[in-house]
Amino acid sequence: MVVFKNLDTCQAFEALKKIPAVVLHKSLDQKRISDWWIPHAAGFCYCYAFAPVDDSVIDWLEALTREQQLIEKYRILTEGAIMNTGEKRMVLHHLVRGRLGKPVIWNGQDMEVFYREEKHRFYDFAHKIREGEILGTTGKAFTQIVQIGIGGSDLGPRAASLALSRWAVAAGRARLRPWFISNVDPDDADYVLANIDLSESLFILVSKSGTTQETLANETIVRDRLQKAGLNPDKHMVAVTSTSSPLAHNPHYLDSFYIDDFIGGRYSTSSAVGGVIISIAYGPETFEEFLEGANEADRLAFEPSLRKNPVLMDALIGIYERNILGWPATAVLPYSESLSRFPAHLQQLDMESNGKSVNREGHPISYSTGPLVFGEPGTNGQHSFYQLLHQGSDIIPLQFIGFLRNQLSPDMISEGSSSRQKLLANLIAQMLAFAIGKKDENPSKTFSGNRPSTLLLARELGPRQLGALYSHFENKVMFQGFVWNLNSFDQEGVQLGKILAKKALSSITKGESTDDELLDAFIASALRAVENNGD
Amino acid sequence: MVVFKNLDTCQAFEALKKIPAVVLHKSLDQKRISDWWIPHAAGFCYCYAFAPVDDSVIDWLEALTREQQLIEKYRILTEGAIMNTGEKRMVLHHLVRGRLGKPVIWNGQDMEVFYREEKHRFYDFAHKIREGEILGTTGKAFTQIVQIGIGGSDLGPRAASLALSRWAVAAGRARLRPWFISNVDPDDADYVLANIDLSESLFILVSKSGTTQETLANETIVRDRLQKAGLNPDKHMVAVTSTSSPLAHNPHYLDSFYIDDFIGGRYSTSSAVGGVIISIAYGPETFEEFLEGANEADRLAFEPSLRKNPVLMDALIGIYERNILGWPATAVLPYSESLSRFPAHLQQLDMESNGKSVNREGHPISYSTGPLVFGEPGTNGQHSFYQLLHQGSDIIPLQFIGFLRNQLSPDMISEGSSSRQKLLANLIAQMLAFAIGKKDENPSKTFSGNRPSTLLLARELGPRQLGALYSHFENKVMFQGFVWNLNSFDQEGVQLGKILAKKALSSITKGESTDDELLDAFIASALRAVENNGD
Repeated sequence: MVVFKNLDTCQAFEALKKIPAVVLHKSLDQKRISDWWIPHAAGFCYCYAFAPVDDSVIDWLEALTREQQLIEKYRILTEGAIMNTGEKRMVLHHLVRGRLGKPVIWNGQDMEVFYREEKHRFYDFAHKIREGEILGTTGKAFTQIVQIGIGGSDLGPRAASLALSRWAVAAGRARLRPWFISNVDPDDADYVLANIDLSESLFILVSKSGTTQETLANETIVRDRLQKAGLNPDKHMVAVTSTSSPLAHNPHYLDSFYIDDFIGGRYSTSSAVGGVIISIAYGPETFEEFLEGANEADRLAFEPSLRKNPVLMDALIGIYERNILGWPATAVLPYSESLSRFPAHLQQLDMESNGKSVNREGHPISYSTGPLVFGEPGTNGQHSFYQLLHQGSDIIPLQFIGFLRNQLSPDMISEGSSSRQKLLANLIAQMLAFAIGKKDENPSKTFSGNRPSTLLLARELGPRQLGALYSHFENKVMFQGFVWNLNSFDQEGVQLGKILAKKALSSITKGESTDDELLDAFIASALRAVENNGD
Repeated sequence: MVVFKNLDTCQAFEALKKIPAVVLHKSLDQKRISDWWIPHAAGFCYCYAFAPVDDSVIDWLEALTREQQLIEKYRILTEGAIMNTGEKRMVLHHLVRGRLGKPVIWNGQDMEVFYREEKHRFYDFAHKIREGEILGTTGKAFTQIVQIGIGGSDLGPRAASLALSRWAVAAGRARLRPWFISNVDPDDADYVLANIDLSESLFILVSKSGTTQETLANETIVRDRLQKAGLNPDKHMVAVTSTSSPLAHNPHYLDSFYIDDFIGGRYSTSSAVGGVIISIAYGPETFEEFLEGANEADRLAFEPSLRKNPVLMDALIGIYERNILGWPATAVLPYSESLSRFPAHLQQLDMESNGKSVNREGHPISYSTGPLVFGEPGTNGQHSFYQLLHQGSDIIPLQFIGFLRNQLSPDMISEGSSSRQKLLANLIAQMLAFAIGKKDENPSKTFSGNRPSTLLLARELGPRQLGALYSHFENKVMFQGFVWNLNSFDQEGVQLGKILAKKALSSITKGESTDDELLDAFIASALRAVENNGD
């Protein structure tokens, strides 16, 4: 019997509050640094030696894991329980990577089969595009693939495409070049369209509902350009959507590939939303490896022992930092240029999932939930915001991600070391510097230390590792949502802006007043202010 | 007589603590929305109607402005006072945009003349590159310009180049295409080098000291590639550095352009650090307009009346949010795809300047200083982290930036409105939604409101507006640093990591142990962990 209850009703939570805070530069020793590693999927290891916890904290976090029945809740989620309570939907993004428990049947359909068949349909389509069996209007092979989507249809797939672009070249699998158009700002579409040959370009329109304002606006721009270039837009566009959307079974697209309401936008990279572009650009086998890495991490996440389950440990350390230590933000710092947009994906994944103030039954809660998530790749960040991380007035816990090898180039030696060695040396040095600090007679040069971090380290970044990373953070967010007793799978907080934007738009285009006096006043004063200050 | 004192010794600060917090949905009315706008430089207007302040708060913030002598401190800074106290340096980034007060003489040199002469030297050089008077080794004109730098030599110039790339095309001024290599991860250089024709590429090596590890490592990669392509690297590379660096007066560069220690990295976009690439890519006249916009904003910033000085108002509202309301973070949300990397620049500018825990004399302080700064362009962010901004458990104040017109394309109409109208409607709707919120019987659909924001709005984004934006945030950070009594111009917090990285690197490359047992243990265990979990 799975019971849902708020964090502040948990005994383990009360117990955690009473444990004295760990002082990192006192706790950290060689033994801890050597031992506090957990093997993870796809060759990753997770290091929590620099986290602000000790054995006593970990024991109580494990008790909290049991008290909140995290593994059981994960189990029922993967087997089709209605975990998106507000929208009364199942949550099935794990299933697109492989079945983890009992089959999930819905309306008589085995959902695993549905996802798998769609996957093979787009694998087949990708094969035909890559082999030149499907050509553009003028008979040219497609060399460019452009995804039009926003939010979850953009950030996750974009970060993944970027992460694999150099790897795919090295592996000889890069065929079409991926691009993304997301922003309703037409300068976004302009930039992409100025850089590609339209006659060799295939567009993927991604919108589950088929009604996303920004995506349809960008489709209009793209179809207009294709037409003006003498090309037939219908032959240069496919759709990724739900079977009930206006884009489904629609002759204006070469083909349509389907997902459904059980795959949330920010969890959809493993579905057709990420799969179509990655399969076309880098090959179905690349996407398949991504899914295998994710599935391996999904399976590991069932491990009930906290000290053997890297994602559960990561999730619980985050809870401790947020609710006991009271820290409002967390930084993600990949020491890999290929992961430069991965923090933007995590920002959506985490903040849209757990940035909530009501529990899964819709009752207000009084404890802190999802943190602010941000980050940039190292070593770039070291030359930017690390000053504040080291010496600022607030503590921000850090999540490092690193690799031992390059994706592509034969590494160059300068000043006696390779670039990759420099990258690893910097990562290791930073974690230690944050934790240990340094005393100095000059307070400006003093580092208080005791600034915690964790590390996900692997040999190199390929599709399998990337899949494991996507799974890791999805499951981390899921486990944290269970601890906070949230529905991590809806996003009611974006609705009000949409409604007001519709009103504002009608007022701006027609000059009519809306039923909202403040909105009218704001629109009028904004236009007047700029008009009067024209230069 | 200018007096430096800590914020917590100010009477106005004590008074501010006693004023009841403003409730936005009670304070906001049509009059406030219409009137609380301040004209800014380059046609910008600053709206603070949605800020969490009222007249009583503003009056005390103005008193704080006087008590901390913000305008006087700005004055002495621009006239050459040693405001970078730790490093005993002047702070002269304003001067590269034009003199604001008395001349600054150093070692008998009028510094304005020095900066101006360097500027004209690189304008002249840019002209020769653009007109094909200087050619590559094989006699081809340069079409690609690649900046190699990190931190301040990367983020500010990169954000500015990106912001103007579409504008420059529309204005017919785009000649060379700008690229950036920053990360020591060799995959970064690889990506750029795979996309350009080396024989048509000019590289700018930017390092004030001439010793930046990442930049020199990337130079090694680039020189190696040039050589392997049969090109003479010395004829494809210029330097931006200080006169005392190893890169100065060095025959291995086509030319060198100089800055000095009085231009901090994160404040250097207006100097040769940003000027060389922008002048070469988009023309000296474009960079000159950028400087004019920045200078106009610099001049406006001397206005002593808070209600007439947009940047002072913005700075003081930030202080109120940080030190009275206790909010640790702030989001920057440009509704313009061209500003997609501007938040990363601001992140460095703000967090590296004011992420400090000691005052300008090096004494520890106990109040909060610089906030965490992050952001992504709208409307993309609406489909990502806005959920947390609307309904998360913490309040994060928001800084919106918007424009009425596109930079480039003739706008397309879809569903009865243009893309740019949609963008503006969304921006306006969001600000109102955050402030007012919405009651609903279902707590999941309830928006508590009272989430504040401010707005910088202009007709369109060109070089003049961009210059004004750079100045705005530089001066905001400067004024806030004065209020907190910090030295906003050093970055001691990055030193410890550098020292440890050097040790770690030597251990990794030579396998020798360092004098640091924890460092040795960490390196050994990291390599062992990954080795043992190889897949």
